[in-house]
Amino acid sequence: MTLRVGVVGGGQLARMMIAPAVELGIELRVLAEETGMAAGLAATAVGDYRDAETVLAFARDVDVITFDHEHVPQEVLAALVAAGVAVHPGPDALAVAQDKLVLRARMTELGMPQPDWAAVSDAAQLQDFIDAHGGRAVVKTPRGGYDGKGVRVVSAATEAADWFAALAEDARGGELLVEELVDFSRELAQQIARRPSGGMRAFPLVETVQRDGVCVEVVAPAPRASERLALAAEDIGMAIAEGIGVTGMLAVELFETVDGRILVNELAMRPHNSGHWTQDGAVTSQFEQHLRAVLDLPFGATEATRPWTVMVNILGGPAQGGLDDRFDAAMASHPAAKIHTYGKAPRPGRKVGHVTVAGEDLDDVVYEARAAASVFLD
Amino acid sequence: MTLRVGVVGGGQLARMMIAPAVELGIELRVLAEETGMAAGLAATAVGDYRDAETVLAFARDVDVITFDHEHVPQEVLAALVAAGVAVHPGPDALAVAQDKLVLRARMTELGMPQPDWAAVSDAAQLQDFIDAHGGRAVVKTPRGGYDGKGVRVVSAATEAADWFAALAEDARGGELLVEELVDFSRELAQQIARRPSGGMRAFPLVETVQRDGVCVEVVAPAPRASERLALAAEDIGMAIAEGIGVTGMLAVELFETVDGRILVNELAMRPHNSGHWTQDGAVTSQFEQHLRAVLDLPFGATEATRPWTVMVNILGGPAQGGLDDRFDAAMASHPAAKIHTYGKAPRPGRKVGHVTVAGEDLDDVVYEARAAASVFLD
Repeated sequence: MTLRVGVVGGGQLARMMIAPAVELGIELRVLAEETGMAAGLAATAVGDYRDAETVLAFARDVDVITFDHEHVPQEVLAALVAAGVAVHPGPDALAVAQDKLVLRARMTELGMPQPDWAAVSDAAQLQDFIDAHGGRAVVKTPRGGYDGKGVRVVSAATEAADWFAALAEDARGGELLVEELVDFSRELAQQIARRPSGGMRAFPLVETVQRDGVCVEVVAPAPRASERLALAAEDIGMAIAEGIGVTGMLAVELFETVDGRILVNELAMRPHNSGHWTQDGAVTSQFEQHLRAVLDLPFGATEATRPWTVMVNILGGPAQGGLDDRFDAAMASHPAAKIHTYGKAPRPGRKVGHVTVAGEDLDDVVYEARAAASVFLD
Repeated sequence: MTLRVGVVGGGQLARMMIAPAVELGIELRVLAEETGMAAGLAATAVGDYRDAETVLAFARDVDVITFDHEHVPQEVLAALVAAGVAVHPGPDALAVAQDKLVLRARMTELGMPQPDWAAVSDAAQLQDFIDAHGGRAVVKTPRGGYDGKGVRVVSAATEAADWFAALAEDARGGELLVEELVDFSRELAQQIARRPSGGMRAFPLVETVQRDGVCVEVVAPAPRASERLALAAEDIGMAIAEGIGVTGMLAVELFETVDGRILVNELAMRPHNSGHWTQDGAVTSQFEQHLRAVLDLPFGATEATRPWTVMVNILGGPAQGGLDDRFDAAMASHPAAKIHTYGKAPRPGRKVGHVTVAGEDLDDVVYEARAAASVFLD
């Protein structure tokens, strides 16, 4: 019996599951939002993931349902579970990724190190938090944000007035999340895979570089990371994966503070941009590990195959033409670069691909990866 | 404009082009012999590759035609070329792979080292060759042989009587190929990629192990290979690729003799079993390199990423059930093994998948790869 995995969502994360699925002989089925998406090759259905009937029909012919994103509504997830479908990650875990207030509350319950935070329902509460934290803070809408959207650094509550106004108009009411502005020296990410039967496996700790809230570069393993730091990150990742009951891949985005602490920033319960380096730099890629995890199969080894691997996102792409118009130039100058494109039309700021380079010397690897990625930009 | 590659033939070689095509964003289209084949995911047409109209219709929507095998008849290839289709490798190169007598004659013309050989049209000529070469020789049918089929070691011409009888019944007449039985210490394979515009790139020389004419194991790079030997093999590979005008991947199967010479055994003009190790052990896989080559794009780096990589074929597969019934056992015991299955039903002797392990210590790597592959057998 061929193993069958159904992925809800047809973006690049689903797309990048195709290669390991083909290699292992797993049948990958994708419920895409529309035709012509990144994971189009494996799209067996097109429909609205917010519609329970659509998702239930899609789930009928697969062994397990997993996700390209975390936006499937809880009522749809509940309908899947009620119908006896294996759903990984499950609704309870996804609830934590879907709402940043739930996330903060759960991290507090689990005793995880994190920024000071509060739920605020009006400008006065927000101003109090700002005043108590040195005059600046980070305000976030609890739901729907990604890649820097729904996140603002503010020094006065008035700067979030529009968000409070939107809350007031929302029949469900609600609150904003406010967090202390962490004085971090850099950002790190820890990936953990967890099986439904409970086993866990960590990937090496990596350093991530964000620009305007969007990941631009990842260095694996994180340079200048002590064994103490790496173990602390792994412990945090496993405590969260276990505590929340994540199944599949979990990415824990972390701040490393100037005084040497690590704090939990955000979570992703799926393959994550911080793990794209594993495709070309680890024995097992995060995409293969995710498939193994959701099928409750034993994990692949997660060791890096080279001393350093650097991933650089292609953001936006060329102003004219497609990514493959640049293949000749990129490949001629950068034969060691692994080029990944997502089949998405170039658009300013959009993640349309990434480039990975692995090797012995970190400076060389960083230089090559940035140079190769830059060929795809104007 | 998305680059589009059409592959004639839906076997595992076409299947293994899917992963790099998805990563690069190349549209792969496959003309499969029937439904449900190894490369089924990318099959956009099903039909007979011996029918020119079928292949011409398939070729209409792609930028280049390439192949999963070398069996497309010359008249079909000629029709493609006449219609202005880019065909890589082209008809002249494929003619050399399609007929072992043509191969031997071309190797002689190119001055390549090879076993003594002759074209024999009757038993007397064969017996003369046997007598002149120590009482034993290898007889081959010039066409249609693969994986040890169409090859016999004989000590008397009578052992090929049935093949001569078949020749006599064939209206086209014809000859058999006879070769000296080479006293070889081991077999090697050299892969070369060549672009239509002429550039070439070699992969590391590997050692291959055959059993009953079928490849069972590949070690990369070839152990105990001097630089002199490696350069000699690369020179031979490039001279053949250039001399025959191969475009795409070329594999040159070589004998290393007990007295230290290397002799050309056979050629394959496509990705080849001797190069499957590159998927998990080289910067660029042979499948990606083939796609780059046939699209006339610059080559990827071919260096090994680990000191040793060993590939072991899964021949036959389990007597009961499918390969994925063994995933749990194989993955639990061999986390570093990369498992590749071809979506083919198990059958005695059939190549249904392979396992690759890479690492620092050759003995460990060989042990792990063999042990992991054996989990899939009974």
